[in-house]
Amino acid sequence: MSELENYIAGLCCDAKEASRKIVGLSTAKKNAALYRIADTLERSAGEIEKANEIDLVNPAVPPKMLDRLKLGEDRVRAVAAAVREVAALPDPVGGGERWVRPNGLIITRERVPLGVVAIIYEARPNVTVDAASLCIKTGNAVVLRGGKEAINTNRVLVRLMREALEAEGIPADAVSLVDDVTREGTAILMRQRGLVDVLIPRGGASLIKSVVENAKVPVIETGAGNCHVYIDKSADIEMAVKIAANAKVSRPSVCNAAETLLVHKDVAREFLPKFAEAVSPWNVELRGCGRTREILPGIKEATEEDYYTEYNDYILAVKVVDSIDEAIAHINKYGTMHSEAIVTRELEAAEKFRREVDAAAVYVNASTRFTDGGEFGFGAEIGISTQKLHARGPMGLAELTTVKYYVLGSGQVR
Amino acid sequence: MSELENYIAGLCCDAKEASRKIVGLSTAKKNAALYRIADTLERSAGEIEKANEIDLVNPAVPPKMLDRLKLGEDRVRAVAAAVREVAALPDPVGGGERWVRPNGLIITRERVPLGVVAIIYEARPNVTVDAASLCIKTGNAVVLRGGKEAINTNRVLVRLMREALEAEGIPADAVSLVDDVTREGTAILMRQRGLVDVLIPRGGASLIKSVVENAKVPVIETGAGNCHVYIDKSADIEMAVKIAANAKVSRPSVCNAAETLLVHKDVAREFLPKFAEAVSPWNVELRGCGRTREILPGIKEATEEDYYTEYNDYILAVKVVDSIDEAIAHINKYGTMHSEAIVTRELEAAEKFRREVDAAAVYVNASTRFTDGGEFGFGAEIGISTQKLHARGPMGLAELTTVKYYVLGSGQVR
Repeated sequence: MSELENYIAGLCCDAKEASRKIVGLSTAKKNAALYRIADTLERSAGEIEKANEIDLVNPAVPPKMLDRLKLGEDRVRAVAAAVREVAALPDPVGGGERWVRPNGLIITRERVPLGVVAIIYEARPNVTVDAASLCIKTGNAVVLRGGKEAINTNRVLVRLMREALEAEGIPADAVSLVDDVTREGTAILMRQRGLVDVLIPRGGASLIKSVVENAKVPVIETGAGNCHVYIDKSADIEMAVKIAANAKVSRPSVCNAAETLLVHKDVAREFLPKFAEAVSPWNVELRGCGRTREILPGIKEATEEDYYTEYNDYILAVKVVDSIDEAIAHINKYGTMHSEAIVTRELEAAEKFRREVDAAAVYVNASTRFTDGGEFGFGAEIGISTQKLHARGPMGLAELTTVKYYVLGSGQVR
Repeated sequence: MSELENYIAGLCCDAKEASRKIVGLSTAKKNAALYRIADTLERSAGEIEKANEIDLVNPAVPPKMLDRLKLGEDRVRAVAAAVREVAALPDPVGGGERWVRPNGLIITRERVPLGVVAIIYEARPNVTVDAASLCIKTGNAVVLRGGKEAINTNRVLVRLMREALEAEGIPADAVSLVDDVTREGTAILMRQRGLVDVLIPRGGASLIKSVVENAKVPVIETGAGNCHVYIDKSADIEMAVKIAANAKVSRPSVCNAAETLLVHKDVAREFLPKFAEAVSPWNVELRGCGRTREILPGIKEATEEDYYTEYNDYILAVKVVDSIDEAIAHINKYGTMHSEAIVTRELEAAEKFRREVDAAAVYVNASTRFTDGGEFGFGAEIGISTQKLHARGPMGLAELTTVKYYVLGSGQVR
């Protein structure tokens, strides 16, 4: 084993040991640790900002990343407030169901922590604290591997959180940072079978693809969102314009923003010019199919690749379709099973869309932008799963737990 | 792409298409298909037996596999009866919860099929029908890749099931067999990302290891069971002997049988001779630590490797421990997180064991042999998961489903 392998395996081993110590912590104790972390971060805002400034002046950091990377005093206060919000949420651990078998065995299906959760993410240092607080709340140990751009900020954040844990008598190794920013280190982390119980990648499509293809530990895929809005022939056109525009322009960089607009041929002539006008203040680049370009002659042609692309930008592919079946087939072929919307007045179309679209969240007459733990009422979110195993859609606290069967007998044998 | 790659990708594509057609089938329709499958199998028992005989006379089949491979008329009737039992179970698909957000969005968390379930398994041809019936019941398409030893039997079983589906107007591609028995074909199946929603390997440790290490699709690990029985210092010795003996000898070939016995030093002198006598009719080979061999001088020495081994045989490792902590540490180090038992009279020991042992099923005063979908009251079982994501322990019908969020609005934007 290389030195780096030893380091990462050792760190995951320590995390595993810590996870076994914190598995039975009371909710009160976990909340006390969270409040102490929030207080510590606020008190150390100056120190955090200083470390963050080292990251910000790194000439290797692309300018468009600077805003995500920045963690000034005001943002530290927001991060601390988010930790207190997690403390205030109900604790899913320990709940369960119980039944008795005819032979007298009492079976309890109990909700328990996963164990060790590893998170691989990019530049945002607030993820360091968000992810750690969700894991502490659910009794998991967390291994954090943030982007190299934020390494100085992350070092300080993790040190402060570890100090706060120790002050509450909780093992510091419940939160640890992989202090290595090489690709090799990430690859080693993905292979810690038996130590890492789940790996959650948070970031762009290439990070997620690399994790899914190379990980030897269980993974929850998150984030890739090639979302669609379909304007049905029966749509309320005014509502359709409002929803489609919102799904594209309210925040194009996020995963629940729309990337392709599908329009039924019967309403395309009425809808498309109104839509183009509505998004014109944002200079949205439209890329259309042949029929779209007959109606909106000035726009670029959409290629097959466009339909597969998550732009995360003010760009939108537009396609006129013959039927709801064509729209659904398009979504199931090109989409990433994240968030899909239909605008319609017909119950049959709504029900068909709900049933046949294979996605985490299916919307009728609302913007795709609502796929979010907060908007769904979960209070917190560790990511949005686009896979079907374990978690689908926004993942709250319950998704950071698993179950254990506790079977109490009085000598039963089989 | 090779011809084999084309064949398997095409088959998975057809399965995906079928899965989209059956996603909304009513429970009545699915049950009708199951009853028809049961009838068809019984009516064709002679044909099945003839195909099975071709497999049984294959000189390449190891003699000890013959019993598992055999599918005579009586076993066909048992298989058909199991299909009817699945039909009689409640359908988890379509259930869910609903809530309304302050902005008026109505969110429904609906239980839906996974899509395409692939199963890789070994010689038992009854798995072909069991797995298919559980998938049909839950609205999933299934891709079956059975062992090469059963290929003739499996071809007939799958053809009969497909005919029964078609007779009910359900796409035959909801059940398909990978008619290829090469390792390469298995490896190709594990890489069908976007087509296979979950892959469940059912079989020995080497099959499961190969799948977990090579699959690019989501996997549920099943089956590996290195289970322990720990005799606490406060144990009722008579009960302890009965439970430990049952866990070892009642069916040593299965995953919930015990492989290592841990005995508290305070009761070792009383317990071990009684236990050795109790299992003597089965000629169980005991392999002990130094302290065990002082009490049972005739037995072999247990090595480090023994503690890691799932014998699936009349062999048992035995270790005397100083404390419950040592027992728990041993289990968490060497075990496979399957089924673990303590025999004790003390509440504190029972609670400590329940809390700190990291396993799918934790038993107090009962045999590990109860970890089973039927014994737990689930009515059916597709395998026993030893991982923590999605499913843990015996997997029933609910574990073959996922969720979808259906969000109904009236024009909401964000």
